[in-house]
Amino acid sequence: MTTPAPNPTIRRLDVASPVPADIDIANAVEPLHIADIAAELGVPPEHYDLYGKYKAKVLLSVLDKLQGQQDGYYVVVGGITPTPLGEGKSTTTVGLCQALGAFLDKKVVTCVRQPSQGPTFGIKGGAAGGGYSQVIPMDEFNLHMTGDIHAITAANNLLAAAIDTRIFHEASQSDKALFNRLCPPNKEGKRRFADVMLRRLIKLGISKTDPDELTPEEVRRFARLDIDPASITWRRVMDVNDRFLRKITVGQGPEEKGMVRETGFDISVASEIMAVLALTTSLADMRERLGRMVIGNSKAGEPVTADDLGLGGALTVLMKDAIHPTLMQTLEGTPVLVHAGPFANIAHGNSSIVADKIALKLVGKGGFVVTEAGFGADIGTEKFMDIKCRYSGLTPQCAIIVATIRALKMHGGGPDVVAGKPLDHAYVSENVALVEAGCVNLAKHISNTKGYGVNVVVAINKFATDTDAEMEVVKKAAMAAGAFDAVVCSHHAHGGKGAVDLGVAVQRACESQAEPLKFLYPLDSSIKEKIESIAKFYGASGVEYSEQAEKQIEMYTKQGFSNLPICMAKTQYSFSHVPSMKGAPSDFVLPIRDVRASIGAGFIYPLVGTMSTMPGLPTRPCFYEIDILCCCAIDRVQFQFWGHS
Amino acid sequence: MTTPAPNPTIRRLDVASPVPADIDIANAVEPLHIADIAAELGVPPEHYDLYGKYKAKVLLSVLDKLQGQQDGYYVVVGGITPTPLGEGKSTTTVGLCQALGAFLDKKVVTCVRQPSQGPTFGIKGGAAGGGYSQVIPMDEFNLHMTGDIHAITAANNLLAAAIDTRIFHEASQSDKALFNRLCPPNKEGKRRFADVMLRRLIKLGISKTDPDELTPEEVRRFARLDIDPASITWRRVMDVNDRFLRKITVGQGPEEKGMVRETGFDISVASEIMAVLALTTSLADMRERLGRMVIGNSKAGEPVTADDLGLGGALTVLMKDAIHPTLMQTLEGTPVLVHAGPFANIAHGNSSIVADKIALKLVGKGGFVVTEAGFGADIGTEKFMDIKCRYSGLTPQCAIIVATIRALKMHGGGPDVVAGKPLDHAYVSENVALVEAGCVNLAKHISNTKGYGVNVVVAINKFATDTDAEMEVVKKAAMAAGAFDAVVCSHHAHGGKGAVDLGVAVQRACESQAEPLKFLYPLDSSIKEKIESIAKFYGASGVEYSEQAEKQIEMYTKQGFSNLPICMAKTQYSFSHVPSMKGAPSDFVLPIRDVRASIGAGFIYPLVGTMSTMPGLPTRPCFYEIDILCCCAIDRVQFQFWGHS
Repeated sequence: MTTPAPNPTIRRLDVASPVPADIDIANAVEPLHIADIAAELGVPPEHYDLYGKYKAKVLLSVLDKLQGQQDGYYVVVGGITPTPLGEGKSTTTVGLCQALGAFLDKKVVTCVRQPSQGPTFGIKGGAAGGGYSQVIPMDEFNLHMTGDIHAITAANNLLAAAIDTRIFHEASQSDKALFNRLCPPNKEGKRRFADVMLRRLIKLGISKTDPDELTPEEVRRFARLDIDPASITWRRVMDVNDRFLRKITVGQGPEEKGMVRETGFDISVASEIMAVLALTTSLADMRERLGRMVIGNSKAGEPVTADDLGLGGALTVLMKDAIHPTLMQTLEGTPVLVHAGPFANIAHGNSSIVADKIALKLVGKGGFVVTEAGFGADIGTEKFMDIKCRYSGLTPQCAIIVATIRALKMHGGGPDVVAGKPLDHAYVSENVALVEAGCVNLAKHISNTKGYGVNVVVAINKFATDTDAEMEVVKKAAMAAGAFDAVVCSHHAHGGKGAVDLGVAVQRACESQAEPLKFLYPLDSSIKEKIESIAKFYGASGVEYSEQAEKQIEMYTKQGFSNLPICMAKTQYSFSHVPSMKGAPSDFVLPIRDVRASIGAGFIYPLVGTMSTMPGLPTRPCFYEIDILCCCAIDRVQFQFWGHS
Repeated sequence: MTTPAPNPTIRRLDVASPVPADIDIANAVEPLHIADIAAELGVPPEHYDLYGKYKAKVLLSVLDKLQGQQDGYYVVVGGITPTPLGEGKSTTTVGLCQALGAFLDKKVVTCVRQPSQGPTFGIKGGAAGGGYSQVIPMDEFNLHMTGDIHAITAANNLLAAAIDTRIFHEASQSDKALFNRLCPPNKEGKRRFADVMLRRLIKLGISKTDPDELTPEEVRRFARLDIDPASITWRRVMDVNDRFLRKITVGQGPEEKGMVRETGFDISVASEIMAVLALTTSLADMRERLGRMVIGNSKAGEPVTADDLGLGGALTVLMKDAIHPTLMQTLEGTPVLVHAGPFANIAHGNSSIVADKIALKLVGKGGFVVTEAGFGADIGTEKFMDIKCRYSGLTPQCAIIVATIRALKMHGGGPDVVAGKPLDHAYVSENVALVEAGCVNLAKHISNTKGYGVNVVVAINKFATDTDAEMEVVKKAAMAAGAFDAVVCSHHAHGGKGAVDLGVAVQRACESQAEPLKFLYPLDSSIKEKIESIAKFYGASGVEYSEQAEKQIEMYTKQGFSNLPICMAKTQYSFSHVPSMKGAPSDFVLPIRDVRASIGAGFIYPLVGTMSTMPGLPTRPCFYEIDILCCCAIDRVQFQFWGHS
């Protein structure tokens, strides 16, 4: 059973049955020094920075070096509409790559999101795949990593502090005093605009560059942002599950002179800066996106940006290391690029463009880059195609849809699946009829995804209790719905070896694909037309807009933002807005409660229902089980991470 | 003028006059790869982790390897009572080390604090020494560094979230329900206590280890922390100057069911976890200190700790990388350990014990470790001796007091010195009488510091406008007050070369020192006796306690914390509590407004006046001048950092 490893970094696993806890599997393996992984992948030492022994930032400069290189195949992993337990999308992403790299001798890179640290200490525990398909070391993947989320927190909150402080200073100073402070004369009595101020002048249509030449009216327009406190959409963030910060009042100190304001904190990965990081294509592009982030409006209704506050450059400097993806490894020694982790509802839920671009060049012609899209294919894959690929210019050859017998049974009418409660008998014993009935969900995801012009491969993520008859039904339904192939895989129990068939199918799918990417909607249609295209894609019979949504659409259109792609903030538990509507519902009208925008990241996000952007801690959080073991000179971290997703 | 460099990492500087801006000096130098610095210092590769090319974390494991090695000389740098412009203590610390390492051929390590990122974007700008005595690269030193402060923020705020959430969950659950959630039965119906819960059981005097054996009364005592919301002293933190967070109300979301509470944010470096990091001696010790941090009291008046909340282990895991100091370099290529940066008033303002310990072993016999103590010697050096050295067991051989002609003139009766305003004529032209009158301040710092049993060397940090006559007066006064030596130095203008005389004096002072360290007070005296010893040391004629202070002293004494050292929270601008009382006042009664405690860090801190623990941003913050320069493939960070300290 010990096939010789195709390259020196590949590690052959000793697989135990039943599958041990994720942390025990991860801890049983001694990771390779990341420099070895980098060398095998062909990243020259001058193009990466080590962060300890098991992580390295691959520098964007490597793209210049690899300019002439052809791209590898580009594979996106989505899923059917999941149960609350998750259907193993990350695990399949990792397992497939282990199969391609460790068993099929392909150059391969896994591209995944950096997890939020908050939920690690809450209910969710750590996430880096599961079973014998994981990214290691688990603690370094889940905690701090190379500091990217911390940089986002710092940048996000510097902007937040600047907003309130600016309102405070404007309230107590005349136009002239404000201007004198913003452009103070130097020792020779000469004033000068900081570079970032020139951007504001251009925006205001003032072509002067000498501060002393501004008229009093121009001084007023330049110096006074006149932010409408009620319009501020920029919130503070923290990478902690702190429910008591969801809604707060700030400014209650005596020195703030009664300038109180209601606001709140989101978890850091919900910051627009995270979405910017995921969608940017270079440092210069990131500088522009960060500068044009809109934080609210002036009292006259004009959008106020980070650059208006003088901050676009400083935010970029805070993010200058975060822009480089982090190289890690799988259990079987294949390379992983971890980068960005935007929310999958209020943002687009995909890992970064720059990581995918670097990976595609590094694997080169005939190699594979497998990237995961958050939530079900209706959300993750849709946003991957219509937002991420639109900005990157990249075209995937194959889209995977991960399905489980468990979730299909649920869609077929099985009882509720609730996290933390034991599974109903229906889910752990054979029930072909339930599976068959549930395949409508899979079929709709297949036909939707095929619409983009890619080959669709269904990965049936096998659990120990699934039967052959059940899996046969799924295969048939998948092929009938137009899938290129449908393959059973057992990478959770067997590592890459369990996903070899999937790897072969993916390779065939990629090699036989030549169509260009077909977007769901053109950018130049109206905001409403775009929303309606997506609603139809979900199966809705129509769209209903609240008064607030109408108002916002009108405002964004007037402000010139209607040409942005749409990022729908919808539940992941149904094609519709109602989590309990399983299968493939078609008799619903999609309600748009509100419409918001991430102008810097570059999308409008309509809210379908209420999205929580700050999780809480349960009575007994995971942190009870996290400690260090200090034995002799060796300090080992003891974790118990729950769940596998 | 080009003496050959004593070792391969030493860099000879081309010094320009007048001295260019700090950032221009820093950018003109190509730093060495930090692996070269580590090699020259004798840190084997297995005992450090690279963080990019110019930073490395030196692992605590190196202490085991160097166990047999003798310590080098230990030098602390304090200062006279400063003006608001700062008297160049950091710059002198760096310059002295450049002299010792690059010109006097000594093994030397500079130990400095990590700066807070908040002020970098506010008024202060970056700080890494100044002129030709700096730590480089400046941007990596000032922003993120190796993530230690971000780790502190994450740990601090996880604890804060756990406090509010626990109160919330306790409010809605019966004792039994709470207990069932804290110790849920596994599949076999068996319960077990998490390790951290056993600590709470021991604290409660319950010797059982089987959850099923607890009586209902024991269940209640174990599961219900019964935190008194009014007693909570733990605040949230952020490494941003965000004045609007000084006082806030949390819990206003509808899901928090009206459980609102007034609280606030401090800047991250004010977190007790920062003080723990600075005072800890090992990972196991840090685990204990983090676990015993007190966040408030139960309604019965018992202290509630992080371990009571189940968090001591998780906090340690979040801090497990932060415990390793970061190796960087000076402009002249000598090694620097950057680690921790606690507030100098509500905490003890010194860099870490572990960094100093590692450094003392690395330089070995005859080598030098120079460490800086925040604020004037009345605060920084006092806390260095009575708190830091008490916990570390280390003894310094020499204490430096940095003095400037400018500050001495202020103490002699010169006009106010205000940051951002031009200096009065008195400070830029010769005025020997003012200097002479001001030397009372220096003399008192000398005699105070000598009281600890160390040799005192005065470093006169020369400015271009200082005259020989003025400096002669200072030298005389210093020697008359009992200084071992008093030396003029010009390291700001000349780098290490400008501090060679100082280096020679320090070497002589260290070699002729043999006294043991004499603490100012014994730990077993009462809180009041200790406060009074320090007040006398300041020159006060007595101490006055507020009612609140009396109450707190009584409470801490009752709770068993009276044997901790005292960390006075006092202004740095006077020996007294009144910033305008310059020189060496003696006709004042020190008022103790309140008394607080950092039990995990290990000190009681009386508040003399009001301390701001969250700075604000000015109308035109430094961030206006911070941007990247994207030219061709090279992305360079453009900074303008103000001030030199």
